[in-house]
Amino acid sequence: MAKEPKPIDDLTIWDDAKAMIKKAREEGIETVHERLQMQTPHCKFCELGTTCRNCTMGPCRISKKMPRGVCGADADVVVARNFGRFIAGGAAGHSDHGRDLIEVLEAIVEGEAKDYKITDEAKLIRIAAEVGIETEGRDIMAVAEDAMECFFGDFGSRKSEVAFLSRAPKVRRDKWDSLNMTPRGIDREIAEMMHRTHMGCDNDAPNTMIHAARTALADGWGGSMIGTELSDVIFGTPTPKMSTANLGIIKEDQVNLLVHGHNPVVSEMILAAARDPELVARAKELGAEGINVGGLCCTGNELLMRQGIPMAGNHLMTELAILTGAVEAIVVDYQCIMPSLVTIAGCYHTKFIDTANKARFTGGIHIDFQPKTAMEQAKEIVSMAVEGFAERDAGRVDIPCEPVSIMTGFSNEAVIEALGGSLDPLVQAIANGDIRGAVGIVGCNNPKFKQDSMNVGLAKELIKRDILVLATGCVTTAAGKAGLLVPEAIEMAGPGLKKVCGSLGIPPVLHYGSCVDNSRILQLCGALADTLGVDISDLPVGASSPEWYSEKAAAIGLYAVASGIYTHLGHPPNILGSETVTNLAVEGLEDLVGATFFIEPDPVKTAEMFDERIKAKRKGLGLSE
Amino acid sequence: MAKEPKPIDDLTIWDDAKAMIKKAREEGIETVHERLQMQTPHCKFCELGTTCRNCTMGPCRISKKMPRGVCGADADVVVARNFGRFIAGGAAGHSDHGRDLIEVLEAIVEGEAKDYKITDEAKLIRIAAEVGIETEGRDIMAVAEDAMECFFGDFGSRKSEVAFLSRAPKVRRDKWDSLNMTPRGIDREIAEMMHRTHMGCDNDAPNTMIHAARTALADGWGGSMIGTELSDVIFGTPTPKMSTANLGIIKEDQVNLLVHGHNPVVSEMILAAARDPELVARAKELGAEGINVGGLCCTGNELLMRQGIPMAGNHLMTELAILTGAVEAIVVDYQCIMPSLVTIAGCYHTKFIDTANKARFTGGIHIDFQPKTAMEQAKEIVSMAVEGFAERDAGRVDIPCEPVSIMTGFSNEAVIEALGGSLDPLVQAIANGDIRGAVGIVGCNNPKFKQDSMNVGLAKELIKRDILVLATGCVTTAAGKAGLLVPEAIEMAGPGLKKVCGSLGIPPVLHYGSCVDNSRILQLCGALADTLGVDISDLPVGASSPEWYSEKAAAIGLYAVASGIYTHLGHPPNILGSETVTNLAVEGLEDLVGATFFIEPDPVKTAEMFDERIKAKRKGLGLSE
Repeated sequence: MAKEPKPIDDLTIWDDAKAMIKKAREEGIETVHERLQMQTPHCKFCELGTTCRNCTMGPCRISKKMPRGVCGADADVVVARNFGRFIAGGAAGHSDHGRDLIEVLEAIVEGEAKDYKITDEAKLIRIAAEVGIETEGRDIMAVAEDAMECFFGDFGSRKSEVAFLSRAPKVRRDKWDSLNMTPRGIDREIAEMMHRTHMGCDNDAPNTMIHAARTALADGWGGSMIGTELSDVIFGTPTPKMSTANLGIIKEDQVNLLVHGHNPVVSEMILAAARDPELVARAKELGAEGINVGGLCCTGNELLMRQGIPMAGNHLMTELAILTGAVEAIVVDYQCIMPSLVTIAGCYHTKFIDTANKARFTGGIHIDFQPKTAMEQAKEIVSMAVEGFAERDAGRVDIPCEPVSIMTGFSNEAVIEALGGSLDPLVQAIANGDIRGAVGIVGCNNPKFKQDSMNVGLAKELIKRDILVLATGCVTTAAGKAGLLVPEAIEMAGPGLKKVCGSLGIPPVLHYGSCVDNSRILQLCGALADTLGVDISDLPVGASSPEWYSEKAAAIGLYAVASGIYTHLGHPPNILGSETVTNLAVEGLEDLVGATFFIEPDPVKTAEMFDERIKAKRKGLGLSE
Repeated sequence: MAKEPKPIDDLTIWDDAKAMIKKAREEGIETVHERLQMQTPHCKFCELGTTCRNCTMGPCRISKKMPRGVCGADADVVVARNFGRFIAGGAAGHSDHGRDLIEVLEAIVEGEAKDYKITDEAKLIRIAAEVGIETEGRDIMAVAEDAMECFFGDFGSRKSEVAFLSRAPKVRRDKWDSLNMTPRGIDREIAEMMHRTHMGCDNDAPNTMIHAARTALADGWGGSMIGTELSDVIFGTPTPKMSTANLGIIKEDQVNLLVHGHNPVVSEMILAAARDPELVARAKELGAEGINVGGLCCTGNELLMRQGIPMAGNHLMTELAILTGAVEAIVVDYQCIMPSLVTIAGCYHTKFIDTANKARFTGGIHIDFQPKTAMEQAKEIVSMAVEGFAERDAGRVDIPCEPVSIMTGFSNEAVIEALGGSLDPLVQAIANGDIRGAVGIVGCNNPKFKQDSMNVGLAKELIKRDILVLATGCVTTAAGKAGLLVPEAIEMAGPGLKKVCGSLGIPPVLHYGSCVDNSRILQLCGALADTLGVDISDLPVGASSPEWYSEKAAAIGLYAVASGIYTHLGHPPNILGSETVTNLAVEGLEDLVGATFFIEPDPVKTAEMFDERIKAKRKGLGLSE
């Protein structure tokens, strides 16, 4: 490469990452950072969102010089169409994941998946009752079957709204109705988004944006929420527990198997298989002390929340984890899995094993994982990892640090239990100003940011201001590595938050789960609003995705805003080519849904923006600032 | 514009089009041709399909110099992802259209749509029986309700295949099963396509392409077929009739209202309203002789097939029709409606009226058309057109020619009736070589081609070779204007085709309907294959979209190939940046599904390619070449 590589210190705030990037450079292994540099500068049209490829009269590029595409579409239409499809991609990812959980539930009901069971029967009964299913005195499998039908129905064309919309305050639901924003069916809104953005359909940017919001709401209150709730039903609702994080969780003396992706269906089974005595014995036979399952990204978060597995890292650590040279296998399901992992695994003895037909990787080992043969296939996979231990080159192993402690497992159920059975103490703490408000920090890494500088920086700035932080997705490992996910982190918090968290023995940054688990935050906001008798947009809350990169993160941001939550993004989506769309996003939506996006790359300024918003919302509720 | 405008003679083969382009230039009105010139040269990356915007680590551009995106995706992955989404857009368009017909059927069943009815009860009973619904002795509304449930179910997540797949030969269905290509649910495949193409999911180009084919099959044998069949049920199954075509159908002494888009739900009602005595009287009061409803594109084809309305033109005539200065209103539903029409309508007295919430146009008059208030709203729309007659500037009216005759209405039912009740005479004619084979010529105009040169040129070359042509979509008006859609056109056909068509009194090019009506051709191929006891890929048939431009056309092409039909495209989709994807499309698919695409811009060479293929297939069936 002709370009001078960027100084490593500019790329990440973490020592483990720096050590591995250095190792990569020494070994001539390309990572995301080199590729970003290679791809910079980006195409300005694509960055502005003004490229259209939706038909072959083009492709077109809109600019002052070329103000219309071949069909006549202007920048507003092109940007809105592209953004609509971007949202559809994100909503489809989360929701198709949710559907996979329904299919496992179906297999359980039909007796076709002996390795899975209904772990949290009480939760199943609770959510079934919520969506109007008769539960009293019924067999749990009968309830499960009705729930499955209800949730499959949420993906269809026969409903006027998805089932969990009942969790949103009525005033909010009425607002959605009046705006034509009520999500009817999850797949339907996605397909309609694709239809609307075909040449010659929706040529009114605000109208397209409304449907983008509807599609995002179908994700948040539909697909994602179904994914979260059924994962709890099948694998257990998370409870607080301790674990560890960073590359130090990879053990030199063990078989290391990393799970990566988003869906717990495969990874839960891998974890169970890794405890199989025969496989452990075989690992010992090969000289390992045992089998160590570590997590990456959201599949990691799923297992961390429920089973307390250690976390190797977040998005930008996935390549670097392999570079330790001590990973026998990386087992993936889907989403956010950089195809480069196959290449990097190939530079070591690491086996890259993909498990989903819908996410195959050229060069990977494919196991067509099916619920009905889950444990058998999981053992096959773990066995591959174990046998790989013999191939490890000890001379290339470099595990750069010791792991740090983290606390995890904050489902809403766990929080309510910690509060003594209701949300009232939380409402009280908000009312008296000990907790001034709450912000969910969610989402990704993006190599355009110094890794986790913004994720961690913002969390620290917020808790200082007595603003509780709920972390999900890739932000969680960042917060954990920064020492924010342990009860002792109250020392970094303001006095009110310190008091409340200290008395409860919880951290000021709560690990709320994976990216689909942002639905837990939606549910919490709905419940808080109902408790206070207000709309979600009246609450002193916010959302942020500081270092986001994915279509899913954009969908999350949009459903947050459409739900009435003021939402920060560290950098804008590719919409700046349209003033109409941009103004709608950062201003116009306030009038429609009572919240907007704001874009700000600096953590202190972002915290100040949230502070101002929270002040205003507290004032609106008649509370002290 | 700095560039010298292209000579008008290079833009189109039609005199009516030339006259209107000349008028546009004189009046300083921009058309698609100027915009194409402005957008040329196109971005090479977008043309090759190697631009990725599916996350904000990019946007990325893949080339020899930059062989991987930030995530590590190579050209194969990026091209496959883009093509997958392109197909999803097309499948979503057709299928969401199909869903709208189911919703009208639902409204009829529920008594909520008094202006619609079940027109062809026999067809409803026939298709209901086909999909396994009990019909014997049952009330027609009960049958309709079950059919509606069945077809809604085809959009859902609970089926292993869409209902009309039963129309494909078993050997073909087995092939799809073995390739993981069987479409389960229409929206599901679209949503899964969006999921697979999210960053970090499907990173194996051939695997993505297989799902693209599955998504396209969900369109052809699912959404489109439902759209066609329910349109027949609700508005009547087409029968042969005469009509006229070209801009000459616009009448100087009448109120001219053009319908444009794809779905007959609105346009059928407009046509009915235009016959309302009060509105006709009002038109006369204003000095018009009557109200003339003309068709554009596929909404036009729908009304032409069933009601015999005259056709003003195809895709590239939509702007030019307004330029006659004699169009009081252009009423649109959705798809292929150039947003420029609003601008051009604004240059005249023409009212641009959009009717679908999912296809609004900034600057258009929006009527939120609903089935339950259909006639009332249709009258409101027609009334706007009528009142507009008073605003017409007679000095700017220029209707450039006299219309030509066309024959239309060739549904499969009509063809079978013409053949005396079964397909046997057709099979016999194919067997004895009078008809050597058949090719469906379908799809669009694209200003990159001299308008209709390829559509008409290919049709002429094929019939010369005794190859029957079935025309749909924008090809129909082209064929009609060229004199190919009348029985007398047998004079341009080879001796065998001349004999058969002559004896039946039909043209050698049969108007088979709108773009969703390509499902009629699929059904015919399935029936022919079953009659002969072979697979569709064994038949001496082909498909072509010579001047295609839309995502829907790409979906049609892909479901044709995946159904075993050798398919021609006049220019390639944006896939040439990947050798893997390109080779799969033009070669590799032959082994998988028994057919491929081929790309050829010359009509004679294309006809020769089809001729060779048909020879080979005839030989395979033991027939003379």
